[in-house]
Amino acid sequence: MIEIHVLHGPNLNLLGRREPGIYGQLSLEQINQRLLQRAAILDVHLTIFQSNHEGALVDCIHQASDVGCGGLLINPAAYTHTSVALRDAISAVALPCVEVHLSNIHAREAFRQHSHLAPVCLGQICGFGADSYLLGLEALVAHLRKN
Amino acid sequence: MIEIHVLHGPNLNLLGRREPGIYGQLSLEQINQRLLQRAAILDVHLTIFQSNHEGALVDCIHQASDVGCGGLLINPAAYTHTSVALRDAISAVALPCVEVHLSNIHAREAFRQHSHLAPVCLGQICGFGADSYLLGLEALVAHLRKN
Amino acid sequence: MIEIHVLHGPNLNLLGRREPGIYGQLSLEQINQRLLQRAAILDVHLTIFQSNHEGALVDCIHQASDVGCGGLLINPAAYTHTSVALRDAISAVALPCVEVHLSNIHAREAFRQHSHLAPVCLGQICGFGADSYLLGLEALVAHLRKN
Amino acid sequence: MIEIHVLHGPNLNLLGRREPGIYGQLSLEQINQRLLQRAAILDVHLTIFQSNHEGALVDCIHQASDVGCGGLLINPAAYTHTSVALRDAISAVALPCVEVHLSNIHAREAFRQHSHLAPVCLGQICGFGADSYLLGLEALVAHLRKN
Amino acid sequence: MIEIHVLHGPNLNLLGRREPGIYGQLSLEQINQRLLQRAAILDVHLTIFQSNHEGALVDCIHQASDVGCGGLLINPAAYTHTSVALRDAISAVALPCVEVHLSNIHAREAFRQHSHLAPVCLGQICGFGADSYLLGLEALVAHLRKN
Amino acid sequence: MIEIHVLHGPNLNLLGRREPGIYGQLSLEQINQRLLQRAAILDVHLTIFQSNHEGALVDCIHQASDVGCGGLLINPAAYTHTSVALRDAISAVALPCVEVHLSNIHAREAFRQHSHLAPVCLGQICGFGADSYLLGLEALVAHLRKN
Amino acid sequence: MIEIHVLHGPNLNLLGRREPGIYGQLSLEQINQRLLQRAAILDVHLTIFQSNHEGALVDCIHQASDVGCGGLLINPAAYTHTSVALRDAISAVALPCVEVHLSNIHAREAFRQHSHLAPVCLGQICGFGADSYLLGLEALVAHLRKN
Amino acid sequence: MIEIHVLHGPNLNLLGRREPGIYGQLSLEQINQRLLQRAAILDVHLTIFQSNHEGALVDCIHQASDVGCGGLLINPAAYTHTSVALRDAISAVALPCVEVHLSNIHAREAFRQHSHLAPVCLGQICGFGADSYLLGLEALVAHLRKN
Amino acid sequence: MIEIHVLHGPNLNLLGRREPGIYGQLSLEQINQRLLQRAAILDVHLTIFQSNHEGALVDCIHQASDVGCGGLLINPAAYTHTSVALRDAISAVALPCVEVHLSNIHAREAFRQHSHLAPVCLGQICGFGADSYLLGLEALVAHLRKN
Amino acid sequence: MIEIHVLHGPNLNLLGRREPGIYGQLSLEQINQRLLQRAAILDVHLTIFQSNHEGALVDCIHQASDVGCGGLLINPAAYTHTSVALRDAISAVALPCVEVHLSNIHAREAFRQHSHLAPVCLGQICGFGADSYLLGLEALVAHLRKN
Amino acid sequence: MIEIHVLHGPNLNLLGRREPGIYGQLSLEQINQRLLQRAAILDVHLTIFQSNHEGALVDCIHQASDVGCGGLLINPAAYTHTSVALRDAISAVALPCVEVHLSNIHAREAFRQHSHLAPVCLGQICGFGADSYLLGLEALVAHLRKN
Amino acid sequence: MIEIHVLHGPNLNLLGRREPGIYGQLSLEQINQRLLQRAAILDVHLTIFQSNHEGALVDCIHQASDVGCGGLLINPAAYTHTSVALRDAISAVALPCVEVHLSNIHAREAFRQHSHLAPVCLGQICGFGADSYLLGLEALVAHLRKN
Repeated sequence: MIEIHVLHGPNLNLLGRREPGIYGQLSLEQINQRLLQRAAILDVHLTIFQSNHEGALVDCIHQASDVGCGGLLINPAAYTHTSVALRDAISAVALPCVEVHLSNIHAREAFRQHSHLAPVCLGQICGFGADSYLLGLEALVAHLRKN
Repeated sequence: MIEIHVLHGPNLNLLGRREPGIYGQLSLEQINQRLLQRAAILDVHLTIFQSNHEGALVDCIHQASDVGCGGLLINPAAYTHTSVALRDAISAVALPCVEVHLSNIHAREAFRQHSHLAPVCLGQICGFGADSYLLGLEALVAHLRKN
Repeated sequence: MIEIHVLHGPNLNLLGRREPGIYGQLSLEQINQRLLQRAAILDVHLTIFQSNHEGALVDCIHQASDVGCGGLLINPAAYTHTSVALRDAISAVALPCVEVHLSNIHAREAFRQHSHLAPVCLGQICGFGADSYLLGLEALVAHLRKN
Repeated sequence: MIEIHVLHGPNLNLLGRREPGIYGQLSLEQINQRLLQRAAILDVHLTIFQSNHEGALVDCIHQASDVGCGGLLINPAAYTHTSVALRDAISAVALPCVEVHLSNIHAREAFRQHSHLAPVCLGQICGFGADSYLLGLEALVAHLRKN
Repeated sequence: MIEIHVLHGPNLNLLGRREPGIYGQLSLEQINQRLLQRAAILDVHLTIFQSNHEGALVDCIHQASDVGCGGLLINPAAYTHTSVALRDAISAVALPCVEVHLSNIHAREAFRQHSHLAPVCLGQICGFGADSYLLGLEALVAHLRKN
Repeated sequence: MIEIHVLHGPNLNLLGRREPGIYGQLSLEQINQRLLQRAAILDVHLTIFQSNHEGALVDCIHQASDVGCGGLLINPAAYTHTSVALRDAISAVALPCVEVHLSNIHAREAFRQHSHLAPVCLGQICGFGADSYLLGLEALVAHLRKN
Repeated sequence: MIEIHVLHGPNLNLLGRREPGIYGQLSLEQINQRLLQRAAILDVHLTIFQSNHEGALVDCIHQASDVGCGGLLINPAAYTHTSVALRDAISAVALPCVEVHLSNIHAREAFRQHSHLAPVCLGQICGFGADSYLLGLEALVAHLRKN
Repeated sequence: MIEIHVLHGPNLNLLGRREPGIYGQLSLEQINQRLLQRAAILDVHLTIFQSNHEGALVDCIHQASDVGCGGLLINPAAYTHTSVALRDAISAVALPCVEVHLSNIHAREAFRQHSHLAPVCLGQICGFGADSYLLGLEALVAHLRKN
Repeated sequence: MIEIHVLHGPNLNLLGRREPGIYGQLSLEQINQRLLQRAAILDVHLTIFQSNHEGALVDCIHQASDVGCGGLLINPAAYTHTSVALRDAISAVALPCVEVHLSNIHAREAFRQHSHLAPVCLGQICGFGADSYLLGLEALVAHLRKN
Repeated sequence: MIEIHVLHGPNLNLLGRREPGIYGQLSLEQINQRLLQRAAILDVHLTIFQSNHEGALVDCIHQASDVGCGGLLINPAAYTHTSVALRDAISAVALPCVEVHLSNIHAREAFRQHSHLAPVCLGQICGFGADSYLLGLEALVAHLRKN
Repeated sequence: MIEIHVLHGPNLNLLGRREPGIYGQLSLEQINQRLLQRAAILDVHLTIFQSNHEGALVDCIHQASDVGCGGLLINPAAYTHTSVALRDAISAVALPCVEVHLSNIHAREAFRQHSHLAPVCLGQICGFGADSYLLGLEALVAHLRKN
Repeated sequence: MIEIHVLHGPNLNLLGRREPGIYGQLSLEQINQRLLQRAAILDVHLTIFQSNHEGALVDCIHQASDVGCGGLLINPAAYTHTSVALRDAISAVALPCVEVHLSNIHAREAFRQHSHLAPVCLGQICGFGADSYLLGLEALVAHLRKN
C-alpha cells in the first residue's frame, strides 16, 4: 500500500481559530479526518505531522524517506516564503511532493507570492481551503500510480 | 443544471504535438473528452472554447455572463503572464473562476511565475498535466455547490 | 467638419455592469450619447468603435488615418499597460491623440500607473468617470482648432 | 456659491518666460484671468494662490478647509514628485481635489511620471497647457454639483 | 533644568480633525498639555514648535542649539520620508534626538516605512498615538540623565 | 490581573557579553529584573521566555493565547527580519503585541531596517537599550487599560 | 522546394508612411518584392502574411506547421516585447525561426531591447532596414540546407 | 560688471561648528570673505544668500533673473538630493549655474551621490572644502567671459 | 590543546544519499572521519555537531563559547542564505569562524550566492566537496596559531 | 576600393578549440578565409585584427580612422558586455560599425544580453555561427554603397 | 618641487576630432600645453601620460608612486564607469588624486553618472571642458600645499 | 610532473605596500616563495605571472593551455568583478581553475561580492591572506590527482 506523509507547517495547529475569513472554519483535526477518509477511498496510507519548527519539518521529511514513504503532501505555510532548508530536504530525499495552500497565495501580499519550494515540487494547489489538501492528495496518488 | 465555461488559451490547440516533455502526450480533444466525462459524473454542463486571440477570449467571458454560466475554468496559457484584459474581464463579469496550468509554472522561467489573473481567481492548479483540468473542474463545482 | 475617432478598449462594453464602484453607473451606450451631444455642440463629427481585440483597435487607428480623421480620443483600458502595438499605431499615423480613463489610474494598483501610450499622446485625463471623455473631447477639439 | 481654491506650485510664477516650448506662452496672470472668466460662467468663486514654498502651500490647503472651501484645483509642479506633506494635507482636510499639469508628465523624464498626490485626488489632467486648468475646473465643479 | 525642544512637523496642527482612524482623537493642543504635565513630573522644561515648513523646522533645530537645549523630541510627519535637510540639521547640531510617530509607520504604505532621520536619532517610537510622545519624552530624559 | 508574555528572541541570552557597544552592558537577567519591578508598579503579571528557536517562539505565542494572556511584548531579534512564521502566529492569536529592539535598527545595516512583524504589531520602540523594554511595557499596559 | 513563411507584425502595413527616419522609405509591398526576388535566386518558396492581431499571427504559425513549412522568418514588431503567445507558438511548432527588425532595437528605448521571442529563435538580425529581411532569409535557408 | 548670485543651501549657516571632519573648519562668513576677495580679483560682483528654506532659494533664483544677474554659484546642500523645485527654477531662468559641494558627495552615502540639479548645471565641483567655491567661481566667470 | 567546534547545517546528515552529482559520494560520517584524522595531525581537538534546526545551531555556537572553544568551522548549508540568527550568534560569541561549502555556491542559483554569515567570518572556502572542510580546518588552525 | 576593418575580440583566437557546441567548429583562420573570399566577391578590401586587450582594440579603431577605413565589422566578444571604452572609440571615429556574434547572445545568460556597443552601431547580427560575419559584411557593404 | 602625474584615459588622444559638441574643440596637445603653462605659474612639475589600455594606466599610477610623485590628476574617461583596477591602484599607492571630466557626466546617460574612482579621490570636477583640468590642477596643488 | 600556472591580477605587485590592514604584510615575492616551497612539497611545477593588464592575463591563460598546463590558480583581484573576458578565457581552455582572494570579498563592499569568474571555476577560497593561495594550491592539486 502506498505510504504518503502529510506535513502541516507553522500555525496550522490553530486552524478554525485563526483568521477564518482567510483560512476557513475547519480545524486541523477536521481537515485530517477528511484526508484520512479520502485516503481510504484511494487506498493509500497517510502519516500526518504538524510542527511550528522548520527543523522538525526537515527531520520529518528525512524520516519519510527512511520508512519507504512514496510521496509528500505539504502545506509549508509561512515557511513557503522563507525556508531554503525545506526545499533542500525535498530535493535531497527525491520524493514526489505536492505543495498545497488553503488561501490563494498569489492573490495576497507580494511576499506571499514567492515559494522557495515550488521548483522542487510536482505542482501547487492553492485557494480552495481544505479542498486544496484533498485535491493535492488525488494529484499525488494519480502521479504515483502512473510512475 | 450548472453551466461551466472552459476556456483554453493560445497554442493549446497544439497539445500532444507541442513539447510533450513539458505539456504531456494528450491532445486537446482528449482533454476535452475527459472533462466531459467528469462533467457527466459531476452532473454539470460544459461549454468549451479555444482561441489564440486575447480579444476572443475576452468576448467569450462576456458571453458566459450573458447566458447564465455559473463559473469559469480557464487555462490562460501565455496570456497568464501578459493579459490585463483577461483579468479585467473576469472581475467585470464577477463569475467564480479557477485557473489551471498543465505544467508547474512556478518551477519554470521567472517570467512564467507571475500570473495577472491569479488575484481575481478562486485558486490555481498547476503541474499535473491534463489532471490539472479535472482537479480544477472538481474544485470549481465544489465551490459552486457550497455557495 | 472635423472628424474624430473615439476608441473604447477591452471590457468597456460591459460598463454599467462592471464594478460600478470603480467605473460608474453609466453604460457605454449612455457615454456615447453624451459624447455625441457634446460633439454636436462643438460642431465636430464622431466615429465610435469598441473592441476587446488589440489588433482590431490597431486596425481602427490605421483606418482613421485613411479616411481623413483629424484626431483620436482613446480609452485603452487594460491595453494601456500592456500594448506597445497601440503605441506604435498612434505614432505611425501621427494623429493627435488624447488618452482618457474613467478611474484615476494613478491612485490604483502599481501596474495600472504606467501607460505605454502616454508618451505618444497630447495629454491624459483620468478619474472623472464619463466626464473624462467629455473633457478629453474638448481638449482635443481645442488643440485641433489651434493648429 | 461654491468656493474653490486654486493652488499654483513652485516656478509657475515664471510662466510665459519659462521654457515656452514645454510650458506655453501664457503668463500665470493670463491663466488666472481665463480661470476667473470660466468661473464666472460656471457660477463659482475662486481664490488663487501661488508659492514656491512647500510649507506655504500646505498652510493654504489648511486655510481652505477653515473658510468653507468646497474643493481644490492644484498644479503642484515640482512638488508633485517630492512632497508627501502636500499629499497628507489634502487627505487631512478631506476636500475634493483635482490635479492638473501644463505638460504631459507621463511623456517626460521618469522622475516626473510619479505623483505623490494622485492617490488622494479625484483625477488628473495633463498635457493641454493652460487648458488643463480650465478642464480641471470644469471637472471639479461637475463633481461638486453631483455630490 | 534640562531644556528640551519638541518639534511637530507638517499637518500635525490639524490633529483631531485629520483622519482620526489613523491619527487619533486628540488635538495637538491636548497632546502638548500632556507633554507639559509629564515634563513637570520629570522636572524638565519644554519648548514646543509646530510648522508646515521644512526650512522653519531646520531653523528651529539650529536655534535649539543656540539656546543651550539638551535634546530634541521630533515628530517629522511627512518630512520623515523626504527631508535630508532635517537629517543634516540634527547631525549638525549634534543634539540627542528621539523620533516619534503617532501611527505605526512600518505597518503602512511602503513609502512611509523609510525614515531619513532615523540614522541620526537615538531611537524611534511609533504606533501608540499621543502616548508615542510621552514615551519618547521619557526615553530622552532617561538618556540625558545617564550621560 | 493583566497577564503579559515577554518573548526574547535568538542570542538575547548572551546580553551583556554580546557586543556591548551595540547592545549595552546589562545581562538578560538584569533586564528581566527591571521588567518585573516595573510590572509590579504597573500591577500586571509577566511570564518571560527566551529561545533561539523560531518554532519555540511560535509555540510560546500559541500558549499565551491558551492561558488567557492579554498582550505580548516581543524582541524578535534576528527573526525580525526573516520570520513570517512569527508574524503569522501573532496575527493568528490576535493578541495586542508591542515590538521592541535594544538598538535603533533603522540606523543599522539595510537588512535590519525591515521588520516582518511590524504590520501585525501595535507599534515599535527601538534604540534605547534596556529602556526599550520598559517603555514597551508601559505602552502595552496603557493600550490594554484603554481597550 | 523549401517552403518558408514570412510574418510581418503590427503596424508594418504602414511602412513607407510610418516614421521613415526610423523605419526607412520602402513600403511593405516593396520589401515583399525584394524578398520574393531573393527567394527565387535561393530557390525557395515564400508565403507572406501581415496582421495587427497577435492571435492571427499565432494562428498563422500553427498553419505553417500544418502545411509542411520548413522555417519561419518573422518581424514581430511591437509584439517582440509583449507577446509570450508568439514565443510559445514558435516553440510549439518547433520550426526553425529567424527574428528580424528594421531598426536596431538594442539602440532604442529600454523597453524595445528585450525580446520575448529571442530565446526560441535561431538568431536575430536588426538594424539594416529592409536588408534585415534579406539577410534573415539567407540565414534561414543556409540553416535549412545544412540540417 | 558681471553680477553673480551665490546661494548657500540648508545648514550651511552652521559651517565651522557642523561636523568639521566632513565639512571643514571655516565658518560661512569666512568662506564668503574668501569669495568676495576672489571676486574682487576676478572683477565681478557677488550677491550672497543663505537659507534653510527650499522655497526661499527658489525665490532667490527668480530674483537673480529679475536683476540682471549673469550666473549662479550654488551649494544646494541637502536639497541637492531632494529638490526638483530648485532644478526647475534653474532651468526656468536659464542662467548658467555651477554646482559646488564641500565634501566629495560621490564618496559618501548612496543617497548623496545623486543630484537633481546636475542635469541643468554647467558642471559640478566637489570635495575641496571651501576651495570648491573658489574653483566654482573661477569656472563660472571663465564660462561667462567665453560666451 | 586547541578546541574547535564543527557545525553541519540542515540536510547534511543525508550526504552521500543526497544529489551526489552536486554534493559528492561521501557520507557525513566519512567526512567527519577525515576531519578527525586531519585534526589529529594538526594536534587540535574537534567537537562535531549536526542539526536541521536553526535554533539548535545557535545554541551550539553559544555553548562553544562557554566551554572555551577557540574557533568555529561551519557549513551552514541552507541557512547560509536565510539565517540572520546564525550571523548574530557568531558575532555575539566573537569566535574566529571559517565558512565552508561542498559546492561552489557562486556557480549555482542566484539565491545561493549570498551568504548572511560571510561578513562575520574570517573567510570562505567552497566548491571542493569534502576537501572544503579539510582546507577550512587548516585555515582556521593556521589563523589560531598566528593570533 | 572600400576598406573595412574587421575586429575580433578576446578569446576568439581560440575558435574551433573553444566550446564548439556554442561557438562552432571553425577556426578563426577559417572564418578569416571566408571573409576574404566574400570580400573579393563584394570587391572590398579587409584588414583583420584580433586582440585579447581592450586597449589594443581601441587603438585599432583609432588607426582605422587614420588610414581612411570606411567601416568596421566587430565581434567584441566578452567586451560587448563590459567595455564603455570601445563604445566611445566607435562614436569618436564616427565610422559605420556592424556588431556580430557567433551565438545568439539574447538566448544566453542575462549578462550576455546587454551590449554596450549596440547603441553606436548600425545593427547587430547574432546566432548564425561563422555566417554571422558574412552576413554582417554584406550588411556593412550594402550600407556603405547606399551612403 | 612638487611632482604631479596627469593621466588621460581612453579615446582622449582623439580630442578635438571626437564629438566636439560634447568634448570641445581643443586637442589633447593643446590641453597639455595649457596644463604645463598653469603648472609653471603654480611652480609644480607635471608628467603627462595617455593610454587606451586600462593596465597601462594602472602601471603608470604604480610608477608615480615609485618616483616620488606627490599627487595624481586623472581623467579616467570610459574607465570611470568600468574599472575597479584603477580604483584599487589609486588606493594602493595612497596618493592624493583629483578626478576630472570634460563633460558634466551627471547630466548624461545613466551609466555615465557612476564613478568607480570617486570614493578614493579627493574630489571631482566636471563639465567645464579643458578648464576642468586647470581647476583640478589648482585644487590638487592647493591640497598638497596645505598638507 | 603536474604543471600549474599561477596568475596574479592587477595591483598585486604592490602587496606589502598596499593597504596592509586589508591585504596583509607580505610582498608578492614572499607569497611566491611560499607557493614554490609548497609546490616542492606537493611535487608540482609552478609558472607564476602577474599583470595589471586584463588582456595579458587572457593571453597567459591561452598559453597555459598551449604548453600542457594542468590547472590554473588565479587571484583575479579587481578583474574579479569586471572581466567577462577572463571568464571566457577559462572556459575556453577548459582547464580546472581555483579562484583565490586575500581578503574575504563577501565581507566587503557590495560590488566586491560578485565574481564573474566563479561560475567557471572549481571553487573559491577567500579571506586567509597569503594562506588563501596555499590552500588553493592544495585544493587544485588534490583535484588534479583525483581526476
